[in-house]
Amino acid sequence: MTHEQLFVKMALDSWKSYLDRTDELFKKFTDEEMMMEIAPGRNRNIYLLGHLTAVHDRMLPLFGLGERLHPELDKPFLTEADKSVTEIPSVKDLRSYWSEVNQRVNAAFEKVTPGEWFEKHASVSAEDFSKEPHRNKLNVLINRTNHLAYHYGQVKLAERK
Amino acid sequence: MTHEQLFVKMALDSWKSYLDRTDELFKKFTDEEMMMEIAPGRNRNIYLLGHLTAVHDRMLPLFGLGERLHPELDKPFLTEADKSVTEIPSVKDLRSYWSEVNQRVNAAFEKVTPGEWFEKHASVSAEDFSKEPHRNKLNVLINRTNHLAYHYGQVKLAERK
Repeated sequence: MTHEQLFVKMALDSWKSYLDRTDELFKKFTDEEMMMEIAPGRNRNIYLLGHLTAVHDRMLPLFGLGERLHPELDKPFLTEADKSVTEIPSVKDLRSYWSEVNQRVNAAFEKVTPGEWFEKHASVSAEDFSKEPHRNKLNVLINRTNHLAYHYGQVKLAERK
Repeated sequence: MTHEQLFVKMALDSWKSYLDRTDELFKKFTDEEMMMEIAPGRNRNIYLLGHLTAVHDRMLPLFGLGERLHPELDKPFLTEADKSVTEIPSVKDLRSYWSEVNQRVNAAFEKVTPGEWFEKHASVSAEDFSKEPHRNKLNVLINRTNHLAYHYGQVKLAERK
């Protein structure tokens, strides 16, 4: 295994590990618990489920891996704060979108070659990329894993003991 | 820049970014706030400060970069749960250990070459490493960054609005 293949594996393993842990944690919560706040006055569990689904879904066009599945999630879970949009999908629907998006994203990731992970993503211009070659797809994946770990830590506080 | 150099830069940038954010957040808290729980019945801020300091300190011997600075932090902040050890360092001392450890770790990281990041760490045998070459120092750094992001997300909930 070359170092290039190795670090793509390391980044993907790390992503999948936090995705599995977060998925298991959300599954532990009842639909009623999903409507509760993580800590007093903070985001609800449902908001973080929708937020993570939207952020993961956005990787598909960002990496040139296809159209998004649920662009309608951006307004209630990304651009607006929790509790500011009154009409949001049900917990049941969101759980289904979460699984659907992660499955699609992971299936698409399997087809990306190690070399392609080092290519530029859609939000950086060719000119900027030539000066800043670290702004590649793999770097976004590393940052998305940290973002996932950040929110997983928060949802973990809401777990029953 | 080779892909190997790029990947090491990406992993180190990600580590430093979460370290800076966490450091800024801890600095925002008064010493009194550091003694408060992140959420009702959960760890106190001081515990997470000590916990992260201990975990970061342990990377020094793990990566063959020297002796630990504060092994005495393991008992109160790593092996035991919060509030179970009564004699713990003051917030003032812990803030100083946190800075000291991170500075030492980052200074040591600067001398590690890209190739050395792919070498085995001290907790894996040569035999296991030959079968699982992803168990290298860089992989530990990626996991420590996720661990940091996980707890940063929790401490973020305790921030005053």
